[in-house]
Amino acid sequence: MSLSAAVSSNTLPFQSGSESYRAVEQPFYLPVGDEVSLFEAAHRERIPVLLKGPTGCGKTRFVEYMAWHLAQAAGAGKANAANAANAANAANAGYALTTVSCHEDLTATDLVGRYLLSADGTHWIDGPLTRAVKSGGICYLDEVVEARKDTIVVIHSLTDHRRLLPLEKKGELLKAHPDFFLVVSYNPGYQSTIKDLKHSTRQRFVSIEFDYPAQVLEQRIIAREAGVGDGIAEALALAGVQIRHLDQQNLLEGPSTRLLIYAGRLIAQGVSPRRACDVAIIQAMTDDALLAKGLRQVIQAIFP
Amino acid sequence: MSLSAAVSSNTLPFQSGSESYRAVEQPFYLPVGDEVSLFEAAHRERIPVLLKGPTGCGKTRFVEYMAWHLAQAAGAGKANAANAANAANAANAGYALTTVSCHEDLTATDLVGRYLLSADGTHWIDGPLTRAVKSGGICYLDEVVEARKDTIVVIHSLTDHRRLLPLEKKGELLKAHPDFFLVVSYNPGYQSTIKDLKHSTRQRFVSIEFDYPAQVLEQRIIAREAGVGDGIAEALALAGVQIRHLDQQNLLEGPSTRLLIYAGRLIAQGVSPRRACDVAIIQAMTDDALLAKGLRQVIQAIFP
Amino acid sequence: MSLSAAVSSNTLPFQSGSESYRAVEQPFYLPVGDEVSLFEAAHRERIPVLLKGPTGCGKTRFVEYMAWHLAQAAGAGKANAANAANAANAANAGYALTTVSCHEDLTATDLVGRYLLSADGTHWIDGPLTRAVKSGGICYLDEVVEARKDTIVVIHSLTDHRRLLPLEKKGELLKAHPDFFLVVSYNPGYQSTIKDLKHSTRQRFVSIEFDYPAQVLEQRIIAREAGVGDGIAEALALAGVQIRHLDQQNLLEGPSTRLLIYAGRLIAQGVSPRRACDVAIIQAMTDDALLAKGLRQVIQAIFP
Amino acid sequence: MSLSAAVSSNTLPFQSGSESYRAVEQPFYLPVGDEVSLFEAAHRERIPVLLKGPTGCGKTRFVEYMAWHLAQAAGAGKANAANAANAANAANAGYALTTVSCHEDLTATDLVGRYLLSADGTHWIDGPLTRAVKSGGICYLDEVVEARKDTIVVIHSLTDHRRLLPLEKKGELLKAHPDFFLVVSYNPGYQSTIKDLKHSTRQRFVSIEFDYPAQVLEQRIIAREAGVGDGIAEALALAGVQIRHLDQQNLLEGPSTRLLIYAGRLIAQGVSPRRACDVAIIQAMTDDALLAKGLRQVIQAIFP
Amino acid sequence: MSLSAAVSSNTLPFQSGSESYRAVEQPFYLPVGDEVSLFEAAHRERIPVLLKGPTGCGKTRFVEYMAWHLAQAAGAGKANAANAANAANAANAGYALTTVSCHEDLTATDLVGRYLLSADGTHWIDGPLTRAVKSGGICYLDEVVEARKDTIVVIHSLTDHRRLLPLEKKGELLKAHPDFFLVVSYNPGYQSTIKDLKHSTRQRFVSIEFDYPAQVLEQRIIAREAGVGDGIAEALALAGVQIRHLDQQNLLEGPSTRLLIYAGRLIAQGVSPRRACDVAIIQAMTDDALLAKGLRQVIQAIFP
Amino acid sequence: MSLSAAVSSNTLPFQSGSESYRAVEQPFYLPVGDEVSLFEAAHRERIPVLLKGPTGCGKTRFVEYMAWHLAQAAGAGKANAANAANAANAANAGYALTTVSCHEDLTATDLVGRYLLSADGTHWIDGPLTRAVKSGGICYLDEVVEARKDTIVVIHSLTDHRRLLPLEKKGELLKAHPDFFLVVSYNPGYQSTIKDLKHSTRQRFVSIEFDYPAQVLEQRIIAREAGVGDGIAEALALAGVQIRHLDQQNLLEGPSTRLLIYAGRLIAQGVSPRRACDVAIIQAMTDDALLAKGLRQVIQAIFP
Repeated sequence: MSLSAAVSSNTLPFQSGSESYRAVEQPFYLPVGDEVSLFEAAHRERIPVLLKGPTGCGKTRFVEYMAWHLAQAAGAGKANAANAANAANAANAGYALTTVSCHEDLTATDLVGRYLLSADGTHWIDGPLTRAVKSGGICYLDEVVEARKDTIVVIHSLTDHRRLLPLEKKGELLKAHPDFFLVVSYNPGYQSTIKDLKHSTRQRFVSIEFDYPAQVLEQRIIAREAGVGDGIAEALALAGVQIRHLDQQNLLEGPSTRLLIYAGRLIAQGVSPRRACDVAIIQAMTDDALLAKGLRQVIQAIFP
Repeated sequence: MSLSAAVSSNTLPFQSGSESYRAVEQPFYLPVGDEVSLFEAAHRERIPVLLKGPTGCGKTRFVEYMAWHLAQAAGAGKANAANAANAANAANAGYALTTVSCHEDLTATDLVGRYLLSADGTHWIDGPLTRAVKSGGICYLDEVVEARKDTIVVIHSLTDHRRLLPLEKKGELLKAHPDFFLVVSYNPGYQSTIKDLKHSTRQRFVSIEFDYPAQVLEQRIIAREAGVGDGIAEALALAGVQIRHLDQQNLLEGPSTRLLIYAGRLIAQGVSPRRACDVAIIQAMTDDALLAKGLRQVIQAIFP
Repeated sequence: MSLSAAVSSNTLPFQSGSESYRAVEQPFYLPVGDEVSLFEAAHRERIPVLLKGPTGCGKTRFVEYMAWHLAQAAGAGKANAANAANAANAANAGYALTTVSCHEDLTATDLVGRYLLSADGTHWIDGPLTRAVKSGGICYLDEVVEARKDTIVVIHSLTDHRRLLPLEKKGELLKAHPDFFLVVSYNPGYQSTIKDLKHSTRQRFVSIEFDYPAQVLEQRIIAREAGVGDGIAEALALAGVQIRHLDQQNLLEGPSTRLLIYAGRLIAQGVSPRRACDVAIIQAMTDDALLAKGLRQVIQAIFP
Repeated sequence: MSLSAAVSSNTLPFQSGSESYRAVEQPFYLPVGDEVSLFEAAHRERIPVLLKGPTGCGKTRFVEYMAWHLAQAAGAGKANAANAANAANAANAGYALTTVSCHEDLTATDLVGRYLLSADGTHWIDGPLTRAVKSGGICYLDEVVEARKDTIVVIHSLTDHRRLLPLEKKGELLKAHPDFFLVVSYNPGYQSTIKDLKHSTRQRFVSIEFDYPAQVLEQRIIAREAGVGDGIAEALALAGVQIRHLDQQNLLEGPSTRLLIYAGRLIAQGVSPRRACDVAIIQAMTDDALLAKGLRQVIQAIFP
Repeated sequence: MSLSAAVSSNTLPFQSGSESYRAVEQPFYLPVGDEVSLFEAAHRERIPVLLKGPTGCGKTRFVEYMAWHLAQAAGAGKANAANAANAANAANAGYALTTVSCHEDLTATDLVGRYLLSADGTHWIDGPLTRAVKSGGICYLDEVVEARKDTIVVIHSLTDHRRLLPLEKKGELLKAHPDFFLVVSYNPGYQSTIKDLKHSTRQRFVSIEFDYPAQVLEQRIIAREAGVGDGIAEALALAGVQIRHLDQQNLLEGPSTRLLIYAGRLIAQGVSPRRACDVAIIQAMTDDALLAKGLRQVIQAIFP
Repeated sequence: MSLSAAVSSNTLPFQSGSESYRAVEQPFYLPVGDEVSLFEAAHRERIPVLLKGPTGCGKTRFVEYMAWHLAQAAGAGKANAANAANAANAANAGYALTTVSCHEDLTATDLVGRYLLSADGTHWIDGPLTRAVKSGGICYLDEVVEARKDTIVVIHSLTDHRRLLPLEKKGELLKAHPDFFLVVSYNPGYQSTIKDLKHSTRQRFVSIEFDYPAQVLEQRIIAREAGVGDGIAEALALAGVQIRHLDQQNLLEGPSTRLLIYAGRLIAQGVSPRRACDVAIIQAMTDDALLAKGLRQVIQAIFP
């Protein structure tokens, strides 16, 4: 059972009331290259990792998989699986995953912490980065380049030999937990030049490039995640490949694996394949009638 | 009796003191295509839905209709209708509708919640999105592209396999109620390129395209909503079709069904048809004297 | 006795300590077309009204007149006039007028309400729009296009079939009082393209166009409001017509009726007609010496 | 003894702890045209006044003079002079002058008032405009066009027939004191097009144009204010005229009367006339070496 | 012993806990023209002074010198020197110097004062300008043009005949102490056109122009401040003159006297003259390799 | 054992709960020129130092080294080493290092301090700069040009003869501790013209230029820090030299020494040299496929 399925059931695979969560079963992830071994090597050296790649190609799922995988490798996973109900214990076991979706208004304060006013005066609340720095585990800053500059600079001293997080507002320097590991993602095709990562930031990471899975692999993913037969999965994977090829010529971003799965799920719900591809894939990619017509011809050739 | 009529009477079809409301009678909505079955399929899979289409073509009414329809289908509707006074019970029955009109100054805090200072210190107030995530039902973000980026990013983890809402300021991760369903709307003709939805956001939704209803259907809607005879309704529907055709040439946005209904209601109040079309349709569309003159010729040909 | 005169005397024609006021005598207003009957028709249907027209042509005075007129028509006016001292009673009688002058820094919070901190913690203060939505009467948003976008969006659900005001910060939905009626104004010649009303907003109103009164009518208004003889009033009305004609060629906005009245009042105070027109009309319209000279020639021909 | 002298002595011609002040002796002001009688006429009609003119031509001094003059004319001045120590009494006598220097960051809140937090919760503090509206007297908004738009819009309902100040944050409408009179100033040569007054604002005032005093008059002013002999005063007045003439060709703003007085005061302190004109006039007008050289030739011809 | 030396010793030549300070010994300053007598004349007339000149030419030191000099001249200096320990007494003696370095984020509030919240509610804290206005002495606003516009406007009524500081937030008008004297500085070569002083501000000051000291004078200053012999001082002064000459051709700002002193101090510490000039002068002036090479040739010719 | 190693162990080489830290063993630093003696000379004179150079060339490490070296030279180091556990004692020994990474949202308040509200009212919290000014030691502002202008101006009076820090919000002037020493860094190749340091700021520092270490030196650093053999280290150092040469032609910033070390550490973890260079060096430098291909050819020639 995948993490995805676990989350949509009523059981709680993550610790309630916490910003980090911990998979109780292996998240479904099919490696496309040497990304697992590269990540492991960087993790052993605690060199921060930057995941480069387009929208929806599986970067977030990969991080979830690695959080599970590293815990398994460390032996923590077995104890964890044997005693899944023991949440308090699991909370200390390492490799929790804290994800922060970065955006233009994310401030350093949101990451690091803030003072809150209560009846007894102000007291300090740790932010998600501070909690991860203290307790260890992976902190994943999704689309880091979207964040404001102060957010990005706050990780500088965490990502060199110092591994220190300054809590400026408290006047403290926090040394990172030995298991703390920082991962960020970045979509190079998507960013404008103004939103580029500063060189002084980029040179603090090793980069692992991601792309959409190869056609055969993507077919397997669609079949599994959408619950459709091999024929439909093969056709959808083919549609993905062909539209991405077209897109490169039209300077658009291709359909993600997620969209192909959406189409498959609608088909499984009884929507006709052509209509499912229309609403899940084509309309998500463009509002231009002419361009949509071209994409529809690709779909019609695949689902005659 | 339609929801519209219910709202303008003295009875309260929604739960007072709540941001979500629940129709007690079937909202008037005439389907124009397969939008109902597509919405049902996406809803069964909990795939978020994006409604694309011009101003006033019925997107908001459609969402209200689906909220009623899905509850009926689930059997909750009958119990609800039989016991309309039992508000506390109805509150737990699902398919409540929470609508947020997005705008440039809408922040993630407005959606998610904020700390308020009281005599006993600060306490947390859930925002409308958080309430919907907790209690289930449809959350409808109208004109989502108008919102600030942090508002849009806050829904990212809600719209993939995780279905999680991070309450950053509280340091909590909230798992969505199984009945929580997210719908957003978007007017592609209206947006500028700067205000386009990011691909990483768009690829999280299936899209259902809307357009003005076909002429015969729109005539039925006008007749019913404005309370005018078939002759007037037919003439107004014709005016809608003809002016929208003109508008495409002049790059304007056509008159919505709502404006045609406004004209009908003024006629029903004794205003002459030409004058009613002038103040309800033409003057709402343009301030340019020459353009208005051209539109008036269309009206004069229809109401000779 | 007009409202204007009432306000400048020591009696209080509005309820002290309230943002809405209520005329005790008929405001002076001379209709220029069918604006009164159109407004009545829209009001019976509760279709929101947009008043289009240039600065100082009488839009604000018209709204004051309609607030009085509708109350008279409803029979509330007589009770009101017979018992003017009974303020508490009058407060419940309907057709109070709440005016908000919109500007760039007007926020939704200013309209809807805010939390204030007191010794007993925070408590909520309704804004002027919320008060009008609760108690009924006309709410008039003057130059609505000047307001920030969040201010404009806040009226969306008030201006369609829902007639609901979301109090986002309180997490409440407020149903409008049956007598609540929304009126906005807009100066089309004055706005830049950036400051245009969004189509999704405009298509929520019927529009009534205003222009300066016809010459004979304007003469009557000047004579009455400035307290000057017919000769002076006729000459000033002529000056208004002639300068507005010139202005169309020079792309300026013409002198308002208000400025013509100002000139009349200065003449009544003993200032020579030419000098009065100079300081009240010409200098208010331009700082350009050449343009001013041209305008002075018009005045000199009228006041030889 | 002038107000200027009074202020620089140790006696307090204004009421301590108040933003308005009241001259105890006649401020020195030499009328240059009909500005006094125009102001009186507008004041009798309570038509707001806009003073147009360049920097340092005496607009502020004129308003101070009129505040004194109107009080004299009203007979309040005599009682005031006879009983200068009776500050409490004088505070109610009218024609106090409240001056606000407008700037880019001046908000409506700064003018109207704000809530302050104290140990007993929040309480309201009137702003200078509100105090003037309540107690009467002249409120002078210097360089009004510099203020933010919300500041300017706040005076709209004060400047038409309503004479009302909305205290939006308190939810109150304040009727102006019968003696409240609004005066604003504006420098047309100085403003950029973006900073122009809106027509809807300008058409609420009668305008009185100011320019530098005629040469003979300016000589008298210099002699009196700088305490120099007639020869020096005549030469400085001549320098003013000649440099202003040059400036029109070079698109600069000419030296104000104030700068000519500064030069005179330095000369009275023993600085040589050429050097005094250099530091007081030329260097205040330009940083350009070539332009300064040209101006120095004018000075050298006058002070050979 | 100079003020500079005094400050770097352990004795406190300024009053601890105060923003103003008072020299106990004569600051080292060599007049380069008539700036002292001009300043004295303007000070006697209380005409505000604007110091114009490039970075590091001695404007700040001049103000410190004048604060000492004026106190000496007034006889206050002697009492002060005789009783240096009597800080409380000295605090009332006049000619204290309050310096504010202006910057883009400096607000009027920073200068004038603010309300602070304490356990007993809010109370007011005077800003540095308000303290100087109350207690007298020189207030020096360094690089005034950098400040926000509201900061600059706040000094308008202080710099004309009124000598009044409005405390807008307190609703008070503060009359300046007879000994209050305002000095501002401004670097004309450095400012962009957007950052120019407004004419209405400039025309409130007499201007004293500063430039680098003449070569012989600068040699004396370097010898004294850096503690180097006459040969080195002469060579460094020559380098200053020659590089400034080059710079005018390259549109750069020349090296300040301070940089020449830095070079001298490094030489005194054993760094070779060429290397000292490189790190103290050339690298502070440019990052361009070619330009730096040209400057190095000048240095090599002087230190062969 | 180096500071770097110390930090990644469980011992705390810095004082917990403090923003400054103190090395207990000599940080690994290999001087590349006369930077140590220049720094010592500037430090003896307390002339502030600006470190110029590209990203990752060792500026931060150099400052850490100098903090250790100066303490050793002063004899404080020995006592410190003999009694490392005596943290309280060490805290008074000088040459603590406070590092602040500057960014666009860093305000003067973040550096200087702020008032915090507690149950007993507000109290003041010193910022990192204020703490360093009070207790002495090196304060290092990394990438100072990134900070907001008010942050930069706050150091002006600290960096001339005054050595004073104004605490504007407290109304205090703070005299720097005799051992306080200010160091800033700046990357000239990286900055845009808008982000250039103001001349009035630059002329307050002597500048020490940094560049990447010479090839032989960099090889030694890589071998030591990555724990790889001489062959790999030599090849990586060669790669650095060659790619930086290419980069100058393509206007990119070269790979830092840190990236070469990252590649070495991945190789030590079993990643193939070519792949390690790809993910650690090439992908950190560019997202352009063509450019990456060119860089890969360089790597393939070195690791055949």
